[in-house]
Amino acid sequence: MKILVIGGAGFIGYHLVHDLLDAGHSVTVFGRSVQPARPLPNGVRYFSGDLSNTALLKDCLADIDAVAHLASGTVPATGDKNPIADVNMNLNGTLSLLVAMEACNVKRLLFLSSGGTVYGPPQEVPISVNHPLAPICSYGIVKVAIESYLKLFERNAGLKPIVIRASNPYGSHQGNLGVQGIIGTYLNLASQQRPIEIWGDGSTIRDFIYVKDLTSLCVKSLESNKAGIYNGGSGLGTSVLAIAQLVQEITGNPAPIVYKPQRNLDVPISVLEVETTKADFDWDPKVGIQEGILRTWDWLNSAEKA
Amino acid sequence: MKILVIGGAGFIGYHLVHDLLDAGHSVTVFGRSVQPARPLPNGVRYFSGDLSNTALLKDCLADIDAVAHLASGTVPATGDKNPIADVNMNLNGTLSLLVAMEACNVKRLLFLSSGGTVYGPPQEVPISVNHPLAPICSYGIVKVAIESYLKLFERNAGLKPIVIRASNPYGSHQGNLGVQGIIGTYLNLASQQRPIEIWGDGSTIRDFIYVKDLTSLCVKSLESNKAGIYNGGSGLGTSVLAIAQLVQEITGNPAPIVYKPQRNLDVPISVLEVETTKADFDWDPKVGIQEGILRTWDWLNSAEKA
Repeated sequence: MKILVIGGAGFIGYHLVHDLLDAGHSVTVFGRSVQPARPLPNGVRYFSGDLSNTALLKDCLADIDAVAHLASGTVPATGDKNPIADVNMNLNGTLSLLVAMEACNVKRLLFLSSGGTVYGPPQEVPISVNHPLAPICSYGIVKVAIESYLKLFERNAGLKPIVIRASNPYGSHQGNLGVQGIIGTYLNLASQQRPIEIWGDGSTIRDFIYVKDLTSLCVKSLESNKAGIYNGGSGLGTSVLAIAQLVQEITGNPAPIVYKPQRNLDVPISVLEVETTKADFDWDPKVGIQEGILRTWDWLNSAEKA
Repeated sequence: MKILVIGGAGFIGYHLVHDLLDAGHSVTVFGRSVQPARPLPNGVRYFSGDLSNTALLKDCLADIDAVAHLASGTVPATGDKNPIADVNMNLNGTLSLLVAMEACNVKRLLFLSSGGTVYGPPQEVPISVNHPLAPICSYGIVKVAIESYLKLFERNAGLKPIVIRASNPYGSHQGNLGVQGIIGTYLNLASQQRPIEIWGDGSTIRDFIYVKDLTSLCVKSLESNKAGIYNGGSGLGTSVLAIAQLVQEITGNPAPIVYKPQRNLDVPISVLEVETTKADFDWDPKVGIQEGILRTWDWLNSAEKA
């Protein structure tokens, strides 16, 4: 297939682009930066612009079979600071994409949603894909609204959307800015022999998924005939403290762990139920948390990084 | 209290403003039109502008105790035509209001949401306020997103929001443009002795509430200390065909009823569960459907209309 990856130079996009090429697909990438934030493989076209630029989007969509939309101008920790900007960039950006796809008669869309924020505080764990949606941060509110619009365009415009509600992806090529996932942040602090900071007492439990496991799911779901909403996680919970301790062990960081106040937007536990996902896509996460952190640490110390 | 009514020159706003004055409150109205769309009582200040105009909003909010936000730039039948405009006007407009209220330290907000669209096709009837939210039109998607942001501002900024999910209000001073409720539309057609048009077979069931019953609930909830989400309906279901027949009877319209194709956005049945609302606000809808249609017909033929 000819696949347009929106956000294909981002952390997850980087891996998805490689996986799609490995699977024999042809890939075009759309991103906000003038130059792609991460290097793109040979043969991948890059379009730079804003999702509100309909004319440009239509150029990108010519001859495309499917779109993978991974782009987000915010992360859970930043959306609340300016909800109007969050809505403009992410909700209206996606609506602009849907309108352009309808105009270009492109029906297939993979959308990366957020299993960590759309449900809000879980009523049961692991969280089924049918759990009520009660997001408590702007990032999650916008993801819920986008999912609803995908269903609207499915009904009214023949869109064939597949939604993956990802848990907490981590792995090589993740940003280290302190907002895009604690594993990258912790490893980065450890590499500088600086103390790892835990928000709260570290009892917060998350479902971490190695990025390659998530992108292999994205490829399988894009190649499938299915439409609908799926959880994309490991199905396993790990506490933030356990992550910190694993990072300390693996890196030999001499600085001790320090504790800071709990952030308001954190739900205490989030672990996704992924049995349906596994069955429907003949998919299984392969990389355990220790192995995944080790691989990420190796990448952080490798020549490729520099 | 000093109350700012956003959309106070609209159909519901018109009645709410009168009810608030009758209850001894002081009222300021904010609307989009340069001149208010409906006449305002003496002593009511009117501000004209866009909700994105933060400076103007702050002027309006000076010295205000509570805000009633009834404004919507779309109705269920029009939102799908341009979802980006829907999001900009209604979601971003409301976010702009919330930001201005936070800046002006105004905590109390009544928001009129939509019991007819936020739930989507009901899993059970009557629909409890805890029913899952699965809107199938842009209007409903935006209302759900706004409700989520109200909770976010409640947690992060001390907002004290009360949400009334209204069913299908009707009554005097409603628009007759064919989009804002079937009762006004049908009465208007009957007054011209033109045929009433039913979309589908008329079996669609709705919960119609006389507008004065809805606005009395708005006043009681604003005067209360409660925050949270409530259904605002009659709790009774009436079929569209029954409404058409009542209108034919009351008006003596000689033209026969005609049937047109079902609209895509209609859910087959929507009746709200309102027991909690009645108990918490010592409120009861007083005007039955026949009486309400008769009152609306009388208004349509009265000198006040002209």
